[in-house]
Amino acid sequence: MVAFKFLLALSLSLLVSAAIAQTREPRLTQGQQCRFQRISGAQPSLRIQSEGGTTELWDERQEQFQCAGIVAMRSTIRPNGLSLPNYHPSPRLVYIERGQGLISIMVPGCAETYQVHRSQRTMERTEASEQQDRGSVRDLHQKVHRLRQGDIVAIPSGAAHWCYNDGSEDLVAVSINDVNHLSNQLDQKFRAFYLAGGVPRSGEQEQQARQTFHNIFRAFDAELLSEAFNVPQETIRRMQSEEEERGLIVMARERMTFVRPDEEEGEQEHRGRQLDNGLEETFCTMKFRTNVESRREADIFSRQAGRVHVVDRNKLPILKYMDLSAEKGNLYSNALVSPDWSMTGHTIVYVTRGDAQVQVVDHNGQALMNDRVNQGEMFVVPQYYTSTARAGNNGFEWVAFKTTGSPMRSPLAGYTSVIRAMPLQVITNSYQISPNQAQALKMNRGSQSFLLSPGGRRS
Amino acid sequence: MVAFKFLLALSLSLLVSAAIAQTREPRLTQGQQCRFQRISGAQPSLRIQSEGGTTELWDERQEQFQCAGIVAMRSTIRPNGLSLPNYHPSPRLVYIERGQGLISIMVPGCAETYQVHRSQRTMERTEASEQQDRGSVRDLHQKVHRLRQGDIVAIPSGAAHWCYNDGSEDLVAVSINDVNHLSNQLDQKFRAFYLAGGVPRSGEQEQQARQTFHNIFRAFDAELLSEAFNVPQETIRRMQSEEEERGLIVMARERMTFVRPDEEEGEQEHRGRQLDNGLEETFCTMKFRTNVESRREADIFSRQAGRVHVVDRNKLPILKYMDLSAEKGNLYSNALVSPDWSMTGHTIVYVTRGDAQVQVVDHNGQALMNDRVNQGEMFVVPQYYTSTARAGNNGFEWVAFKTTGSPMRSPLAGYTSVIRAMPLQVITNSYQISPNQAQALKMNRGSQSFLLSPGGRRS
Amino acid sequence: MVAFKFLLALSLSLLVSAAIAQTREPRLTQGQQCRFQRISGAQPSLRIQSEGGTTELWDERQEQFQCAGIVAMRSTIRPNGLSLPNYHPSPRLVYIERGQGLISIMVPGCAETYQVHRSQRTMERTEASEQQDRGSVRDLHQKVHRLRQGDIVAIPSGAAHWCYNDGSEDLVAVSINDVNHLSNQLDQKFRAFYLAGGVPRSGEQEQQARQTFHNIFRAFDAELLSEAFNVPQETIRRMQSEEEERGLIVMARERMTFVRPDEEEGEQEHRGRQLDNGLEETFCTMKFRTNVESRREADIFSRQAGRVHVVDRNKLPILKYMDLSAEKGNLYSNALVSPDWSMTGHTIVYVTRGDAQVQVVDHNGQALMNDRVNQGEMFVVPQYYTSTARAGNNGFEWVAFKTTGSPMRSPLAGYTSVIRAMPLQVITNSYQISPNQAQALKMNRGSQSFLLSPGGRRS
Repeated sequence: MVAFKFLLALSLSLLVSAAIAQTREPRLTQGQQCRFQRISGAQPSLRIQSEGGTTELWDERQEQFQCAGIVAMRSTIRPNGLSLPNYHPSPRLVYIERGQGLISIMVPGCAETYQVHRSQRTMERTEASEQQDRGSVRDLHQKVHRLRQGDIVAIPSGAAHWCYNDGSEDLVAVSINDVNHLSNQLDQKFRAFYLAGGVPRSGEQEQQARQTFHNIFRAFDAELLSEAFNVPQETIRRMQSEEEERGLIVMARERMTFVRPDEEEGEQEHRGRQLDNGLEETFCTMKFRTNVESRREADIFSRQAGRVHVVDRNKLPILKYMDLSAEKGNLYSNALVSPDWSMTGHTIVYVTRGDAQVQVVDHNGQALMNDRVNQGEMFVVPQYYTSTARAGNNGFEWVAFKTTGSPMRSPLAGYTSVIRAMPLQVITNSYQISPNQAQALKMNRGSQSFLLSPGGRRS
Repeated sequence: MVAFKFLLALSLSLLVSAAIAQTREPRLTQGQQCRFQRISGAQPSLRIQSEGGTTELWDERQEQFQCAGIVAMRSTIRPNGLSLPNYHPSPRLVYIERGQGLISIMVPGCAETYQVHRSQRTMERTEASEQQDRGSVRDLHQKVHRLRQGDIVAIPSGAAHWCYNDGSEDLVAVSINDVNHLSNQLDQKFRAFYLAGGVPRSGEQEQQARQTFHNIFRAFDAELLSEAFNVPQETIRRMQSEEEERGLIVMARERMTFVRPDEEEGEQEHRGRQLDNGLEETFCTMKFRTNVESRREADIFSRQAGRVHVVDRNKLPILKYMDLSAEKGNLYSNALVSPDWSMTGHTIVYVTRGDAQVQVVDHNGQALMNDRVNQGEMFVVPQYYTSTARAGNNGFEWVAFKTTGSPMRSPLAGYTSVIRAMPLQVITNSYQISPNQAQALKMNRGSQSFLLSPGGRRS
Repeated sequence: MVAFKFLLALSLSLLVSAAIAQTREPRLTQGQQCRFQRISGAQPSLRIQSEGGTTELWDERQEQFQCAGIVAMRSTIRPNGLSLPNYHPSPRLVYIERGQGLISIMVPGCAETYQVHRSQRTMERTEASEQQDRGSVRDLHQKVHRLRQGDIVAIPSGAAHWCYNDGSEDLVAVSINDVNHLSNQLDQKFRAFYLAGGVPRSGEQEQQARQTFHNIFRAFDAELLSEAFNVPQETIRRMQSEEEERGLIVMARERMTFVRPDEEEGEQEHRGRQLDNGLEETFCTMKFRTNVESRREADIFSRQAGRVHVVDRNKLPILKYMDLSAEKGNLYSNALVSPDWSMTGHTIVYVTRGDAQVQVVDHNGQALMNDRVNQGEMFVVPQYYTSTARAGNNGFEWVAFKTTGSPMRSPLAGYTSVIRAMPLQVITNSYQISPNQAQALKMNRGSQSFLLSPGGRRS
């Protein structure tokens, strides 16, 4: 039986990786227009209050989000809150802004490798567990992952997942859904399929959201489901009920505990394996998360300007199939980001701390944005559009989601810039400046790259 | 000369496989909307009568087919009927519902490896072959494949093909055309390019179809073609004529015979080779068909519930390039299919025998379908939408076409289900049920998976 | 420092190749319709006059170009003219119709491997170089490629490039931009982002073009840029100025010289490497150009009919990522191209010499085109549509751009044709002709393939 299960897991996960690999690549830009006049930092416009927390959505009809083809949301889960199991037709990339918790992303056919022998202590806390105790229930389930502040989590299209806040402060998660992703063969409307709960009926905003978040069991025939699960219809009716006060995030009746291997340390070690082994069927053991807060592992670091931590398909191989990536940046007081353009995808920036003056220009020589952005705001820098930013006096921290698994920027200033790649004569003739001026343009940022120290001081 | 031909075949087929590989992946969902309120079993709405059989088309403007981005058709070829050579801008997947025949899918540059020394007996039956007889004509042509009931046949975009019924009963073929497939760089209108014949002029329905099915030679300048083929203009004019009574399928004047290797058995043996050998240029020898009727080779089998036979990119490697797949299912009287959703593509179901009660629900908690479907009907289960089915008293048989080369379902009930992958505590808290109820929900289908025995009896 | 630079180059170029690989495949045909009634040879409709040359654009709203999803242009650079650095959101394929020059395609992070010790002689010619002379400026920049008549050049999306005419006659370059390419996540509007210059304000046509071609520095805050580059604001203001008389192509103040390795011969040798080495990170050393004029290397050659030179992903590996290809053809007086259809992409034909009678037919049996096309005209043959051509008395030369990296045609006449692949009986029954007529249809072009000698004489 166990052998059968593992074989099944293997063959199914072969399918999974193949399936996801197959839709890994393109982005549909259909219908989508990027001809706007103005970009600005935006706050969420819709808020759904649930028993165990809140779900906030940015307005998906805003031109900047339409152009990027994404829908952004922020979930706040209260301590002991459980975000109910659900799946969505597009890949989701999540940044854990605050708090800690547990997540399980369920892949059909992967083995239930986690085994729980419920201890006496847990039993005491559980009210309704007497009967079960007698049977000495041994629960098996799929892997549960620890979430901490600074984590980037990748949730593939169609994979059901739940999340539980086992910490003592709110768990805040900001995420984008790539509705244009090719794994979505439905239209570009944002959808979420909940396996439990449903949007509360009260409130006007909630009315809007009812279109999007619903319990899929609700419309099934109870008798048919009862037969399918081989359980009494009473159980089915509980699964179908959308209890109005509970919503999408509920409070757990007791504190939930899941046996997990010694936390985290082990996971970090597997980071090295980045190349395909020809047996991508290790999907069941694939990592869904990585952390971007570690100061040691910054990808770009400048003593004078700040640091950037990139999460791409090399760091988190599942992004190869999801064609998304993220970066966490930290800019010191008054430091700059080099003017640059993204060669490979849109950039959706969420401000996590501080503020910055951001400029975005288009190919018509018009400034689409020249604003100060503040904590909690989100904005889009479209692919190929050039942008730059200068941190305010208190510095600037951000997380950026990118609609590409292989983010690549082409900077205008600094060591790796286009200007530096040009011969002096091309620069002097292009701008009608002297060789010395051209030389200064090429060299004055010395070996600085991307992150530039404030005031133009040489490094 | 032969060497040149083989070299040409090799280099051209290298191109083919590369070309097809390159467009293997994505699906355009543009324009396409999946926001309908209702799905139901549909019969073909357009029927084209030809000399040698009929061509029936489902209404491509129906919302369910628009959402799936496919056009469905059913061809019936009478004994001794020849479906005229044609090609289409989108990949086609065919299921042979009844009868037998021969098909040739012609790939430019592949060698004409089949050699016919026309026997005296054949000669006698041929009226106009006297002259030829003298020259002892040795005909060479590309490979001809045997078709039998239960075959799944994959026809790549742009590859011309013909089909001949050499059996004694009608050959019935049901197929879908994936008009959203990326290998189609034209728009999403369904087209077929016929190398001979044309839609008969009589009848209103045929008028509609004239837009779609036409003889490409017709509009060319006869003189230019005569020069290109180096044949008399009289021959060209015969090629251009759309004889009104004959249509798209004609009756052969004599019984056609083609030398073929000892039928079938040999072909089955090559099934093992599923991995790329780095030399995918074996396109010329690639298999275009496989059979799904064999009881021995079912992929899912339950003594109490039925069986399912899957044809995916592993079974029929050309599907890797076509990003389509199929399944043939057989459900026993009153058995169920687990409620599940497709993670990787739309499912187009055609009922081949019996009937079933089918339910499809969307993310809004609405039932899009709760109907009994019968033999000959077709319906779409959109990607991510949850569906279930219970066979009628006479059982239920179907063939399902899928718009993905790597079909993958996520079941809600049974051994590999999402419910089973969740910890008990998550279930109890999600549905506010007792641990015992949750345990029953997880375990009561035992090791059943996908196909569920009737009445919820444990296996 | 150098080590750091190389490491950086390596890691960045790893990213590049990955990034470009990832968007290599699909084509969006959204919005795009291919339902026109008429195709005809077209001349450019918009002309932008600059100091150092002209830029001509074909009307992107013409149905044939809309269907193909491309924007075509022709640049003429005067001797000593410099086409200013710019990039565009879609891949561009260029054919050098006349003249010679130098191009640099700048990839962020690739090493500046070209080192210039400016010689005394160059110094003398440079007016403003006294100070620099003292410092003995050693200029480093990225690779510069030699361009000659007959070159095909591939410019990836988002890669900035400049081009300089160091010859004594005009450099004429015809190119297509694949605006439907998936590496473009913006909408399908044609854009170019200039790093210098801008469209002159005079003239009505130029007004139109101002929408498309602009200096990206112009809209930035001068103070911020000054800080970013660490140069005086005066320099920035020169970068921002769109000098009205200079436009998109300027005249160099002095003759520019760049040290380059012994020209060309070396480059040809690397042609053999076509397979991935698993380290595609050789992007920095990847070839961007190849020549199609060499008579020796024709891919199709007929002593009676002409020759064709194909540039696909095998000849120029970067086309694997760009999903484009080209062919240069030469048809002798009155010779024919076999009626055929493209299985893998649209074909955009530009007439470089002579004239031909061209026929294009659709699936409705209608002739979309039956015209004589002349030098300098461009037209589209949509994918799957059948076309043929007969050269005029002076022969016919063309370059064809294709929206596929693996071009593949299916000819109707000749050695590799569909007709030849069919059994005689299928032909006799399809066209109701005698076996002898069918035999003639199959065999009368002998071993000719694609290029057919005039008057149908056997080869």
